[in-house]
Amino acid sequence: MAQNVAQKLIESHLVDGEMTPGKEIALKIDQTLTQDATGTLVMLELEAMKLDRVKTEISAQYVDHNLIQEDHKNPDDHLFLQSACERFGVYYSRPGNGISHAVHMERFGRPGKTLLGSDSHTPAAGSMGMLAIGAGGLEVALAMAGEPLYTKMPKVFGIKLTGKLPDWVSAKDVVLEMLRRHGVSGGVGKVIEYYGPGLAELEAMDRHVIANMGAELGATTTVFPADDEIQRFLKSQDRGDEYEELVADEGCEYDEHDEIDLSTLVPLIAKPTSPGNVVPVEEVAGDELYQAYIGSSANPGYRDFAVAAEMMRGRTASKHVSFDVNPSSRAMLQTLARDDRLGVLIGSGARIHQAGCNGCIGMGQAPAHGRNSLRTTPRNFPGRSGTKEDSVFLCSPETAVASALMGKITDPRTLDFDYPKVSNPDDPIVNEDMLEPPLDIEKARKVELVKGPNIASLPDFEGLPDEFDLPVLLKVGDDISTDEIMRAGAEVLPFRSNIPEIAKFVYDGVDAEYPDRAKDTGDHAIIGGSNYGQGSSREHAAIAPRYLGLRVVIAKDYARIHWQNLVNFGILPLTFDNADDHDQLKQGAKLRVSGLHEALEAGTDIKVETEDGGRIACKHALSSRQIEILLAGGLINWMRDKA
Amino acid sequence: MAQNVAQKLIESHLVDGEMTPGKEIALKIDQTLTQDATGTLVMLELEAMKLDRVKTEISAQYVDHNLIQEDHKNPDDHLFLQSACERFGVYYSRPGNGISHAVHMERFGRPGKTLLGSDSHTPAAGSMGMLAIGAGGLEVALAMAGEPLYTKMPKVFGIKLTGKLPDWVSAKDVVLEMLRRHGVSGGVGKVIEYYGPGLAELEAMDRHVIANMGAELGATTTVFPADDEIQRFLKSQDRGDEYEELVADEGCEYDEHDEIDLSTLVPLIAKPTSPGNVVPVEEVAGDELYQAYIGSSANPGYRDFAVAAEMMRGRTASKHVSFDVNPSSRAMLQTLARDDRLGVLIGSGARIHQAGCNGCIGMGQAPAHGRNSLRTTPRNFPGRSGTKEDSVFLCSPETAVASALMGKITDPRTLDFDYPKVSNPDDPIVNEDMLEPPLDIEKARKVELVKGPNIASLPDFEGLPDEFDLPVLLKVGDDISTDEIMRAGAEVLPFRSNIPEIAKFVYDGVDAEYPDRAKDTGDHAIIGGSNYGQGSSREHAAIAPRYLGLRVVIAKDYARIHWQNLVNFGILPLTFDNADDHDQLKQGAKLRVSGLHEALEAGTDIKVETEDGGRIACKHALSSRQIEILLAGGLINWMRDKA
Repeated sequence: MAQNVAQKLIESHLVDGEMTPGKEIALKIDQTLTQDATGTLVMLELEAMKLDRVKTEISAQYVDHNLIQEDHKNPDDHLFLQSACERFGVYYSRPGNGISHAVHMERFGRPGKTLLGSDSHTPAAGSMGMLAIGAGGLEVALAMAGEPLYTKMPKVFGIKLTGKLPDWVSAKDVVLEMLRRHGVSGGVGKVIEYYGPGLAELEAMDRHVIANMGAELGATTTVFPADDEIQRFLKSQDRGDEYEELVADEGCEYDEHDEIDLSTLVPLIAKPTSPGNVVPVEEVAGDELYQAYIGSSANPGYRDFAVAAEMMRGRTASKHVSFDVNPSSRAMLQTLARDDRLGVLIGSGARIHQAGCNGCIGMGQAPAHGRNSLRTTPRNFPGRSGTKEDSVFLCSPETAVASALMGKITDPRTLDFDYPKVSNPDDPIVNEDMLEPPLDIEKARKVELVKGPNIASLPDFEGLPDEFDLPVLLKVGDDISTDEIMRAGAEVLPFRSNIPEIAKFVYDGVDAEYPDRAKDTGDHAIIGGSNYGQGSSREHAAIAPRYLGLRVVIAKDYARIHWQNLVNFGILPLTFDNADDHDQLKQGAKLRVSGLHEALEAGTDIKVETEDGGRIACKHALSSRQIEILLAGGLINWMRDKA
Repeated sequence: MAQNVAQKLIESHLVDGEMTPGKEIALKIDQTLTQDATGTLVMLELEAMKLDRVKTEISAQYVDHNLIQEDHKNPDDHLFLQSACERFGVYYSRPGNGISHAVHMERFGRPGKTLLGSDSHTPAAGSMGMLAIGAGGLEVALAMAGEPLYTKMPKVFGIKLTGKLPDWVSAKDVVLEMLRRHGVSGGVGKVIEYYGPGLAELEAMDRHVIANMGAELGATTTVFPADDEIQRFLKSQDRGDEYEELVADEGCEYDEHDEIDLSTLVPLIAKPTSPGNVVPVEEVAGDELYQAYIGSSANPGYRDFAVAAEMMRGRTASKHVSFDVNPSSRAMLQTLARDDRLGVLIGSGARIHQAGCNGCIGMGQAPAHGRNSLRTTPRNFPGRSGTKEDSVFLCSPETAVASALMGKITDPRTLDFDYPKVSNPDDPIVNEDMLEPPLDIEKARKVELVKGPNIASLPDFEGLPDEFDLPVLLKVGDDISTDEIMRAGAEVLPFRSNIPEIAKFVYDGVDAEYPDRAKDTGDHAIIGGSNYGQGSSREHAAIAPRYLGLRVVIAKDYARIHWQNLVNFGILPLTFDNADDHDQLKQGAKLRVSGLHEALEAGTDIKVETEDGGRIACKHALSSRQIEILLAGGLINWMRDKA
């Protein structure tokens, strides 16, 4: 049967399941990508699994998120990651070498391969015929240890591109058009696949822009074919031999379909505070701005900076605008310098930052209170910039630079000079000096992990016993979010690699004494309401309570990802057979659970007794694999035992 | 009488006093310099003085300290400073345009002029025959308003330079040799003046290095003559017409004297944790390092970066070293790009940062815990890097780059290639696009100050009444420091432009309830012991308690600078006639002060009565000018009334 690119990629990596949308499938993972904000925990997980060496074809660790070093913690993390890469056989991209997505595509991206990354913009590598998916840290750690990825078979959403892009309109406007049409959930449960004659208009890094921001449509991932342009790109990276054509079969079908005539597009902009809030730039033209910001993984190409340089040549950024330039990779920056375009940007007033994520993730470059900031980054959720009362717009480099020049939001088509169209060079500088390859295995085994005072090995968790006594140390209501369980923010996040320290903040906004009470008590239970654990997927909301002795949660029902995380870290998530029991159970109650192993395996109710002799009927929805994981004490133990 | 350069500069600006070392003199100030960390308060002071326009020849405001924008506060400050510059007739150097000292020298430095700056490295401009002095913000605000600077006539310490610098030895090693010989207080009460045939070895920016770090010797300032090299420098900056020769008269004398034969110097390094802890590099060679860092106002010259680029050409920074490059000015960076030296640095693995102060003042670039960091910055006090357990060494660019290459502390003379000696170009790029000139006065008067939510106008303080009732709201012991009165740190410093907010932290480590008690009570007194107000010169330790209602301090005796700050902000500092009275007065006592005006003017004891009818005899050491200031309610009112 004729297949599209997505189906070919999935079929060639399918190790379990069937390719029916919505059904669970298991996929072999060829490559992984981690960044520093998520990578430290991944490396601690590998250590806890006692992994000897990664089993992927390529695993790469990038330091791109936490480049601001206000104290020892970030540089200590960098040294830890470097040592862990040496120990486990992972490429290490040094701080300042660039954003994971751009560097990975340049140096490791390979048509036909799968990539799992602990970063939501991992799908960017779909630009070159890869199946590239973002996931939580532990899932990536498991992939590094050789486990397949379990996920649901997505639908494939085909987008036919026709026509030619007008002057002043570029790849960012294509994906903004997708967001304008389909909104921020238009891609949920789908792989978006682009094809058609319009592809000729889009160079490899332009496709990266579109694949990257597929995440903003909620898509599982985005794919482009590997065609002549990808061959040209790989040749320019001295990797022509890694090219393999991967295109859709003639007559293939898509589960859903749309078409974009590129010639009809105009410069678009996403207004605050959602990437889906897209309008033509001309609708907001004339508004003043504080900042114009180019770069990030959502506009990482040489072209994106070169067109800015050509627009700025002989001109200066308006005096009331902060013009921020965020290079995507060191090699790209070096190429811009070679071509006399970096000097032009500097001369025009640009603030040149380190190659990395920077302001895109709120690490510096926050705009002034209530002032407009135009960015080529992928997201403009409120406060993400670091400024609580922010006003961030997403647009193309052309629109951002036009606005920097004029000091107000400007449709670039209204400028009084011609469009300086620029292509990506066929001879970019290739420089891998800051991308350290894995050590050979004998050397690797001698490496000691370098742990600064804020980096602690993961605690060792025992498996689920057959019976235990569990005081109820906390009872909460409905809709408890993972932010309430484990808040984020500047006070807490620095302890992301230090479970004993971060555990001191568990539930502290709900009950400030819970962490101490739990630490003193040890094994205990929490009673939850409905939708327990909604919100962010953060794994610390499971591992940190487990460190404090949480063994069982009994709730009315759970948010899906947190429920999964509880299992992964060895906490038994039960639901009330009878929701009224929730009202009966008080904080301070003493529970006794017994006959657990048998009940779990038999799938019968779990026996929970109260001290007054009452019985609370509880059930679970665990698969046999999940029961195995719980009995082992969590996924890390399960993986270690398996190895 | 034959005069040295320092004497000529002082005499030509003397408006009061006599030139006898130790005697007070008043000097006309031609130029001022402020940076953003101190500048916001200076601008609020100008606003409170109701200044219409600065009265100096040139005043310039630089944004170089707070370039990391993690939330709205720093960018809001930048916008405020920009509007204040427009309002008051001040040059505004935009964020990323460079470090005040480097840019000021390039664009405004002028032989024969005086410069007062609210930054301790202001003396750097002494490199070109200026008298350049660092001072507190209010003193600079007064100079901007046309007032002379009151200071003590310094001794002049002549340093004769002879001989030629060996390969691999540069200006930084000269000033490190001064620190090795004379220590961190070897310059106290002195102007250091360099002269002699060895000057021919030192280009203008090399002299800047030496003048800059005169601050580390404790000197009032450092001066060099304005000679042919300064003429060359000014011509290279398209300012040849501003040159005026200023050299010492033949046969002039110095109060103290030393001589350095440049040909005998070796690469030197200041070990942790003092700039005075200087040894030859070879003594510590071989130690591992985390970081090598070039740039800052203590090595800002094109040459300093160009020699690094030539050393790195075709080479890469060791994989365990973070090689940080901190450009001193945007024009310098643009010139490096033009000359294909920026690309070389990027290619070698350098992390290129914004032109500004950055890690030199602990704004990013902190080293890993306990790891060695080699820096060309001027200071290595413990913790200044941002990392509490730091280990910072100060050295030349040659030594820092040699160490980055080898991955361990390295005497550059041991490298296996020749010294790539580089001179500063005669045709550097001159680019003032980011240095906004003052508005004409009619436009300026229409400018409204732009105040983000964290910027508050200074509170208006009333003058000292003839009598009042003052409860004693706090009684403290001996050696209270300004850190105890008004702590610094990340929680407090962001409120530097917001007196009502920062006042909430006054004395909070000593008595957490004092701020609320004071705000509720209003006018009150504090009883202090001996050496009251020792430590840092911060003005917030006076203005914030005054905001809370502090009107009188009675102490055994005072630290000099805080005593002056109390007067400047309208708080009457009294001393006990009889130190035993300190023991009698309890916190909570109610005092009545009367007949104050007459007593102040007559110089008699001040009448302080307690509620039980007792009398406490207090005296003061105020000059008649200071009494005027106190009666006006502080220096800002005094200045406003005068205008």
